[in-house]
Amino acid sequence: MTRSVDRTTTARLPIITLTTDFGLDDWYVAIVKAVLLKFCPHARLIDVTHRIPPGDRLKGSISLERAVAGFPEDTVHLAVVDPGVGSNRRMLIVHAKRQWVVCPDNGLITWTWHRHPGCQAYELTWRPDSASATFHGRDIMGPVAGMLAAGRGVEDFGIPIADPILLDAAPVPPTGRSGKVIHCDSFGNATTNIPEEVIRPLPNAEISVAGRHLGGLKRTYTDVAPGAPLVLIGSSGLLEIAVRDGSAVELLGVEVGDPVTILSSDRAN
Amino acid sequence: MTRSVDRTTTARLPIITLTTDFGLDDWYVAIVKAVLLKFCPHARLIDVTHRIPPGDRLKGSISLERAVAGFPEDTVHLAVVDPGVGSNRRMLIVHAKRQWVVCPDNGLITWTWHRHPGCQAYELTWRPDSASATFHGRDIMGPVAGMLAAGRGVEDFGIPIADPILLDAAPVPPTGRSGKVIHCDSFGNATTNIPEEVIRPLPNAEISVAGRHLGGLKRTYTDVAPGAPLVLIGSSGLLEIAVRDGSAVELLGVEVGDPVTILSSDRAN
Amino acid sequence: MTRSVDRTTTARLPIITLTTDFGLDDWYVAIVKAVLLKFCPHARLIDVTHRIPPGDRLKGSISLERAVAGFPEDTVHLAVVDPGVGSNRRMLIVHAKRQWVVCPDNGLITWTWHRHPGCQAYELTWRPDSASATFHGRDIMGPVAGMLAAGRGVEDFGIPIADPILLDAAPVPPTGRSGKVIHCDSFGNATTNIPEEVIRPLPNAEISVAGRHLGGLKRTYTDVAPGAPLVLIGSSGLLEIAVRDGSAVELLGVEVGDPVTILSSDRAN
Repeated sequence: MTRSVDRTTTARLPIITLTTDFGLDDWYVAIVKAVLLKFCPHARLIDVTHRIPPGDRLKGSISLERAVAGFPEDTVHLAVVDPGVGSNRRMLIVHAKRQWVVCPDNGLITWTWHRHPGCQAYELTWRPDSASATFHGRDIMGPVAGMLAAGRGVEDFGIPIADPILLDAAPVPPTGRSGKVIHCDSFGNATTNIPEEVIRPLPNAEISVAGRHLGGLKRTYTDVAPGAPLVLIGSSGLLEIAVRDGSAVELLGVEVGDPVTILSSDRAN
Repeated sequence: MTRSVDRTTTARLPIITLTTDFGLDDWYVAIVKAVLLKFCPHARLIDVTHRIPPGDRLKGSISLERAVAGFPEDTVHLAVVDPGVGSNRRMLIVHAKRQWVVCPDNGLITWTWHRHPGCQAYELTWRPDSASATFHGRDIMGPVAGMLAAGRGVEDFGIPIADPILLDAAPVPPTGRSGKVIHCDSFGNATTNIPEEVIRPLPNAEISVAGRHLGGLKRTYTDVAPGAPLVLIGSSGLLEIAVRDGSAVELLGVEVGDPVTILSSDRAN
Repeated sequence: MTRSVDRTTTARLPIITLTTDFGLDDWYVAIVKAVLLKFCPHARLIDVTHRIPPGDRLKGSISLERAVAGFPEDTVHLAVVDPGVGSNRRMLIVHAKRQWVVCPDNGLITWTWHRHPGCQAYELTWRPDSASATFHGRDIMGPVAGMLAAGRGVEDFGIPIADPILLDAAPVPPTGRSGKVIHCDSFGNATTNIPEEVIRPLPNAEISVAGRHLGGLKRTYTDVAPGAPLVLIGSSGLLEIAVRDGSAVELLGVEVGDPVTILSSDRAN
């Protein structure tokens, strides 16, 4: 067996990411991967998460957008949180940031749509000879994601549409001063829908969450004492509520939907 | 760095799947993967699940069969749920659906054996120069899975046998009218051992589970109201008990072992 | 599509392993993988675990060392358990067992340092044009891990140092007779800091854990009755406390930090 390491090949292989509510206890993810490899044998398969709570389209939407933000052009993102599987709900192919998303048309695309202007949506009209009524991630969306990753054109699989379903979750606009918590991560940090661009021009702004005053913007966790709360710009470019060496979810009781207010409005320039 | 995407190579790489009870908290899975890559450097490694409850051979058996059903020929499936490791229990290599399974001989092969007629079993007799007493997934079964994936023949590793250990879990035969729940997934859907072929010829059949009458066969979840129970043919080709937008496990109290009865027997033709 | 399996390529591809406390619910792991593939497009990415409890540097240290022990030379190990991210804590590149580790300088390297003599540490001084204050796994350590895997030299990224931070956790020396529990795995097995080399020369040794006498060394789980406790040399080459077909954590109440005593000291020869 040759033991040397081959570092000569540098061309990127096709990348497919997966974001689902399938969990990690069952075989569903692996079966979708078998399909992806059937249609794109050399694809790099990257799990974003499979632990979206069953049917939680908002949480799925935010994870999916993070994948779109982080991966390079030509990446294909397969997102399956699909409680309406088998009904007449549409499926989508979306061109976003020179990448492709394949997902049900149930709001999963929301956060990507808002954060990456210029998205183009297509209704996924391709169908296999036979498909189950309960696993379109395997039977319809998986094959299409694989074929897109293999270089096939979107025109083979869908037709342009202008009206994908969007959830009631949008980034706070530049002049907005109130938002809400949209995601809590496994560290217990709470992400809001307030982008960096809203808060950066307000150097004296102070933040309150669900009526609790949390002070001004800090740079990183260690800017406060262990166990103390803080607000900062998180790695996603959004205002985030955290507790140093602890969980804002546990210690402050923060949860998705909590109102977030920017208390000062003096604009720097 | 070359940024272009290489879509020219289409030959499939060897695939190895992993089904274990190792969990995701420790390093055990990674160490087995190091061994697989040592023996088959270009193998695609696909996790089926590592969250089989410790020692649960029935659940492992069902996940393993799903992997065999979903992957293409030549795939190697490494399944390690092995409470008897280090004892005199045998290990197996099984040829199933033109694929290979490597696993302990403790019933893990049961569901594959029943659902894919024509399996051929071999006792895994190959041994390394030294092996631990507690981690044969790393020391014996992993290397053999890697070498099979790399193209070595089974005759280098085992001898044919006719009597692998099978658990008391078999599909209901075509004329059977009673079965049981064999698996509950992370959505709370309950899979039974009643194959599609048993129920399809009975269009007026109604189903009862643990004494609770659940009505006739539906096509998909959205055929009933949110929160309502239903029975349908799941994506595994087996009768399944579900609750729309909910969990049959939580809402109906269904669990593995519950009896399932087909109440009507008028045969369509 | 070509369906044949390509088994001709045997040169090993670069391997990067990941050990973090990011969890599996969020997108953080995927985003780091996007970065790794950017800098090393053909790297094999192997998850060790992402379920280190937030900030648990001891547990991270032990998982990391197991990865170093199991993987071949030239492997790059990225380990991110980093509660001090954004502060003035250093980051490290460590050459260990002809492999590379990239991690924060907060004790994560401890167990690798002790178990693989001859490690050389470097302070990671490379910085990107811009970096977040809260995600150096993505912005600093990930890129460096990717570039090391792609074949770049350590001299491009760091300068030698002699004093990485080490936690108070070291293997018991050859003549030592008392140690402690350092890790409990998901089976409920408790690993101690007592290496095989300490216990093997003492064939009549008996072991007590937190005051409970557990008898002499067994070879494997099935050497005792189901449900009975035992001590054995685990697959990591360390003394381990287990319960056959059960959990030592649950049934014996063993936990990290519990004292472990070797009761007999007669040396074999």
